Amino acid sequence: MKSEMDKLRVSVFCFALVFLGSWIGFVEAGRRGHLVQQKPDPKDAVATARWLVSQNNWGVLSTISSELGGAPFGNVVSFSDGLPNKGHGVPYFYLTTLDPTARNGIRDARSSFTVSEFPIGTCGKKDPENPTCAKLTLTGKFKLVDINSKEASFAKDVLFAKHPEMKGWPKGHDFKIFKLEIEDIFLIDWFGGPKPITVAQYLRPRIMRASVFYRSQLASLSVL
Amino acid sequence: MKSEMDKLRVSVFCFALVFLGSWIGFVEAGRRGHLVQQKPDPKDAVATARWLVSQNNWGVLSTISSELGGAPFGNVVSFSDGLPNKGHGVPYFYLTTLDPTARNGIRDARSSFTVSEFPIGTCGKKDPENPTCAKLTLTGKFKLVDINSKEASFAKDVLFAKHPEMKGWPKGHDFKIFKLEIEDIFLIDWFGGPKPITVAQYLRPRIMRASVFYRSQLASLSVL
Repeated sequence: MKSEMDKLRVSVFCFALVFLGSWIGFVEAGRRGHLVQQKPDPKDAVATARWLVSQNNWGVLSTISSELGGAPFGNVVSFSDGLPNKGHGVPYFYLTTLDPTARNGIRDARSSFTVSEFPIGTCGKKDPENPTCAKLTLTGKFKLVDINSKEASFAKDVLFAKHPEMKGWPKGHDFKIFKLEIEDIFLIDWFGGPKPITVAQYLRPRIMRASVFYRSQLASLSVL
Repeated sequence: MKSEMDKLRVSVFCFALVFLGSWIGFVEAGRRGHLVQQKPDPKDAVATARWLVSQNNWGVLSTISSELGGAPFGNVVSFSDGLPNKGHGVPYFYLTTLDPTARNGIRDARSSFTVSEFPIGTCGKKDPENPTCAKLTLTGKFKLVDINSKEASFAKDVLFAKHPEMKGWPKGHDFKIFKLEIEDIFLIDWFGGPKPITVAQYLRPRIMRASVFYRSQLASLSVL
């Protein structure tokens, strides 16, 4: 009888541990905002491109630097293309002209914006340069968004939703809203070279998949 | 007496669980290569720049795309500047001319390479664009490394050490070793604009800090 009680105690203890682990994982997922939408089938190139833009919250914006002899100058920037899991495809930025990227882009609008699947965490053991670990470069024109437009109001909402810290950035630092007007799409998400996607295909309104999973719930299977 | 045995059993069980957790964390750290060297003091700009290059294993390489009207074209690439935690500062790449970046760089050597502190995992809750979440852009010339040189042999060793998958990449795809010959360094690691670093300061041999910590060991305090 005593031995049965022991077993019961150990079972309750194990259950409590698993429950605690799941709960901590859930709280962590919320805190870090890792509500990751499932990766589309790589055969669906448009969905993959939109997913990469929707799931990342930073990337590298490249402009032409006249200060550096016309060199292409990549810079780490935060961005948003919509509310979480409701991306529209166009990346919006909140930049100050104290930084060279905004200054470069105002002088010469030619620019590109690059994101990788790697930081989303779905590439597993694959190398970041492996073609099946998707990578996307949107090339086009860097544009200032008119602060009095409806678009600016939308852009501010979606930027601040993904980057709450931005709300408190110094007013005197001349932060403005910019966007990339997309002209070309370069996507690698499988072997065999870049996928042909037109801008119209990329921007066409889509019903995004509703299914989501908590990355932490998967990750909790192995203690990271 | 029986109750003492129960306590002992539970203690042994708890100990076994903690041991198992630590062991899984250790194995994970090894598998993912997350042997993260401690972040230098942001006041030490040169050490911070070298640390960013040493701890990242991918970044964005920007070249001038003549196919896209001379636009700056950022592309996700893997790289290595040395054996793990023994970086030399110069990023080496293993690229195929089937990809536009190598073709662009051969035509026009002006290029830059950009890495962020964000994927290293040490920015905490800070936004990727927050100046205290460090970001680095090395601007210079894209160069093919002569395959018969000692440098090529070194570069191959350090690339394959950080990217074992590369060894098996198709021989027929014309992979070659390239490097960035650094001419300018742009580092933001604190408020107050970019830090002035010369290329000579950046490349000067340094005794890197020996202290390391397993990120997973810290992370294991909360089940990610």
